[in-house]
Amino acid sequence: MKKIAITMGDPGGIGPEIVVKALYCAEIRQYCSPIVIGDVDIIREAVKITGLPLKPRTTVVRGSLLDLKSGVGRIDVLDIKSPFPFRKGVPSAEAGRVVVSCVKIAVELALKKEVIAIVTAPVSKESLALAGYPWHGHTELLSELTETEDFAMMFVCKKLKIILATIHVPIKDVAQMINKSLVLKTISLAKKGADMLGIKNPRIAVAGLNPHAGEGGIMGDEEIKSITPAIEEAQGKGVSVSGPYPPDTVFYRALRGDFDMIVCMYHDQGLIPFKMLDFEHGVNVTVGLPIIRTSPDHGTAFDIAWKNMANPSSMLSAIKLAAKLKL
Amino acid sequence: MKKIAITMGDPGGIGPEIVVKALYCAEIRQYCSPIVIGDVDIIREAVKITGLPLKPRTTVVRGSLLDLKSGVGRIDVLDIKSPFPFRKGVPSAEAGRVVVSCVKIAVELALKKEVIAIVTAPVSKESLALAGYPWHGHTELLSELTETEDFAMMFVCKKLKIILATIHVPIKDVAQMINKSLVLKTISLAKKGADMLGIKNPRIAVAGLNPHAGEGGIMGDEEIKSITPAIEEAQGKGVSVSGPYPPDTVFYRALRGDFDMIVCMYHDQGLIPFKMLDFEHGVNVTVGLPIIRTSPDHGTAFDIAWKNMANPSSMLSAIKLAAKLKL
Repeated sequence: MKKIAITMGDPGGIGPEIVVKALYCAEIRQYCSPIVIGDVDIIREAVKITGLPLKPRTTVVRGSLLDLKSGVGRIDVLDIKSPFPFRKGVPSAEAGRVVVSCVKIAVELALKKEVIAIVTAPVSKESLALAGYPWHGHTELLSELTETEDFAMMFVCKKLKIILATIHVPIKDVAQMINKSLVLKTISLAKKGADMLGIKNPRIAVAGLNPHAGEGGIMGDEEIKSITPAIEEAQGKGVSVSGPYPPDTVFYRALRGDFDMIVCMYHDQGLIPFKMLDFEHGVNVTVGLPIIRTSPDHGTAFDIAWKNMANPSSMLSAIKLAAKLKL
Repeated sequence: MKKIAITMGDPGGIGPEIVVKALYCAEIRQYCSPIVIGDVDIIREAVKITGLPLKPRTTVVRGSLLDLKSGVGRIDVLDIKSPFPFRKGVPSAEAGRVVVSCVKIAVELALKKEVIAIVTAPVSKESLALAGYPWHGHTELLSELTETEDFAMMFVCKKLKIILATIHVPIKDVAQMINKSLVLKTISLAKKGADMLGIKNPRIAVAGLNPHAGEGGIMGDEEIKSITPAIEEAQGKGVSVSGPYPPDTVFYRALRGDFDMIVCMYHDQGLIPFKMLDFEHGVNVTVGLPIIRTSPDHGTAFDIAWKNMANPSSMLSAIKLAAKLKL
């Protein structure tokens, strides 16, 4: 059975709870043997608040996951033994450090092929910042740990697949980051992402940056200067890609069936329509890494953390997709 | 019966066709007596390509619409007698000038209360630019013609109501335009828009500008500097407004029923989810003008213009809504 490493995420958030709830779902065991990377006491606490009949079992030795046989009702935890009494419902430097420790172990296991994929529960960007890390999220951290230069966030749900050219960038800085090379790279990663998903001959659409895709240069010229030249170069290489399309109609067209994947210029351009369409089952995939990595498409949700209110649907979808993707 | 002036829009685009198709719909006559402001020859040409049994009738005298009695099967046209052979499927300076002529007459009629509202068919921003006008669209033109300083674009469909703080602005310029005064003004116009729609005690949500609404200042500080102070000031004045919310979840929450209206910081932030949700029936309303003005939520669609392929649904919705709104 395929082994998948699942990090527990920011302990102050809903991560431990959605991991526990997802692993209670018997269906998951048809797809993989999950192993949680986290603190066994925190996982026990999460089990307790959910009231689910689960027994966390500590998997002691790193690098020897061969004996992983437990099924429904058990959770295997590779215990990082975090030293602090964690705080619930708030970001903290300690939480930031724990998240990074878990991810490092998961990546190590994936690079050594002890697991076929990693799934990460949400981290708070504030916790990472409080801990003094430069990364805005898992994606940037993972690219550094795996020494990957060309990577992108792809979001997958049944009806829509999108990939982002820029990620956690303030709106004021987005336009200056859009250049031909970045767009070309993201188109190439879109093709790779479609391949990972098993989509044959994917039709890739590129959204413009500006309202009405600039409408001939009247409202911004990044389409003319950077986006169109990148599309043309990719077409020259045989990629089935088109655009730039007005951002406010390209998603409607994708839903109608015109496109298989949309290259988006910035975070909310893609995530506003994506989350509106399928808030519960969306999955985030990092494309370009030497390992398979998925995660839920939501954050730590500190406001409902540790109240047994979190919905594990997106985590479940992330685990299932991780088991299906091909590198 | 309420008289409504409908401008034919950019003659190179789908405007004349959707006007003709909308006015063929008998249901419209239950709501209003429509009068088209345009060129009667162009309207005849549009009737011809649709194949509909309609007879355009020229209404000669401006300022004496009292005899407007024609019903299904007739279209009353206040003929502007445009002097040029218009070009189909492309923007042009001539088209830009015709659009502005029509809008000026419509506004004059509305200000004189000869019509209760105006509905505008789409104009191409490129036609306006080719004609040497400074306006990016109807909204800016209307604000100038009516000497209105505080106005905003509101979009209305059954499930979602949004209003935009900035409109036809390149992404690179959006952040520098967001300040407390603009956000406060837009919240106030959101309240006014909700009143026009007859929504009692509207719950107004304000979207952040940046990914995750800045996540505590890590990804942009416009939320801290401008948006939150504006929300607090509006709350102090008794407006039921909250936020700033992460842009990628606030629309989902509005659909779920949490909010009645969303204040959006930029064009695509609001229009991407709006058009994905209801591409066909969305209506654009200019809030803040001394007159009622609606329009379809789509553009000139030059690619399908004059081919009898255009869908008049949004125009129909725009006419119906114009008849219902209260100033």
